[in-house]
Amino acid sequence: MRIGFMPAAEPVSRLIEELGKLPGIGPKSAARLAYYLLRMPETEARSLAEAIIAVKDETVLCSSCQNIADSDPCAICTSEERHHNIICVVKEPLDLLALERTGRYKGLYHVLHGVLSPMDGIGPGDLKLKELMERIETGSVEEVILATNPNLEGEATAMYIQRLLSPLGLRVTRLARGLPVGGDLEYADEVTLTHALEGRQPM
Amino acid sequence: MRIGFMPAAEPVSRLIEELGKLPGIGPKSAARLAYYLLRMPETEARSLAEAIIAVKDETVLCSSCQNIADSDPCAICTSEERHHNIICVVKEPLDLLALERTGRYKGLYHVLHGVLSPMDGIGPGDLKLKELMERIETGSVEEVILATNPNLEGEATAMYIQRLLSPLGLRVTRLARGLPVGGDLEYADEVTLTHALEGRQPM
Repeated sequence: MRIGFMPAAEPVSRLIEELGKLPGIGPKSAARLAYYLLRMPETEARSLAEAIIAVKDETVLCSSCQNIADSDPCAICTSEERHHNIICVVKEPLDLLALERTGRYKGLYHVLHGVLSPMDGIGPGDLKLKELMERIETGSVEEVILATNPNLEGEATAMYIQRLLSPLGLRVTRLARGLPVGGDLEYADEVTLTHALEGRQPM
Repeated sequence: MRIGFMPAAEPVSRLIEELGKLPGIGPKSAARLAYYLLRMPETEARSLAEAIIAVKDETVLCSSCQNIADSDPCAICTSEERHHNIICVVKEPLDLLALERTGRYKGLYHVLHGVLSPMDGIGPGDLKLKELMERIETGSVEEVILATNPNLEGEATAMYIQRLLSPLGLRVTRLARGLPVGGDLEYADEVTLTHALEGRQPM
């Protein structure tokens, strides 16, 4: 005979449920994490909880490059050590961080916050393209590097932007095919990314 | 020339660092989770943060079975539908939940909160063994099921408890060897656990 089973205590069940909503965390991992958090010292658990809230409360979108930043305009956009005549266009903030880790790029960025994906109903209006065009029209930009991922959607997005930019007579480049095709920019190692930056080709 | 690279915004870096402390979450997963949390609706992120705090503030250890619970004594220990003469001893709360999911066990539990592990400096005094002995000496317990994991430390802990209990003339059993040896109780499926419960042998 089966009898009704006793679930975890309500606050534990709730935490398991909340953790299970995160990407890449299944029900078993969620349960394991929940009990780990329960055993954590109070101060550490609280500092994680506060970091989750702070990340939303204390960050802003830079109105220029659209990256997530401490201040608007962000430290990259206001840096005098950066070349303001070159913009590297990326899909998301994680890609910007990956490029920064190479330590070899001295220009500015533009974060699209997505790529064109008709299957998911994501069109040009859903990306930060208007903001990109405004920057280019009002600034002294000489080169735009299209650094979207080397996969179907990334390529389509790069092609789309290239067509938008072609009447403006800028140098428009794409990261070199040192990147593994079908891969994800964010997971590329620094050396591969450096090669890709240095071998960029006019498109 | 390498130039100083720009890290993520401080609140984002802090969150990545906090998430990276959790078991099974490496730096890349932590970064991905952090940006996911950043994009989450405010209410959902806040509800995760609150669940992390609540799990510590709103749970107690049941003074009888030592499980993490909403109330002390817990709902299992006070249930009249449970057999109070049988105690199943498990390493941790997750193991109790795994056994509850079989829906076939009607007795009580005792959570050790660990197993003997001389390598990690965990001795008998670090487990909830005193509490187990008190329950057995003051209650009407007829059987103790030793349901620690079927691995080296779990076996050693079961042997240790069996020796503690042998003078008391109780029935002491161990979950049947239906469990994959070297595995982890928490990940066993319900059917295997049911077989293990039903095929338990005197030790």
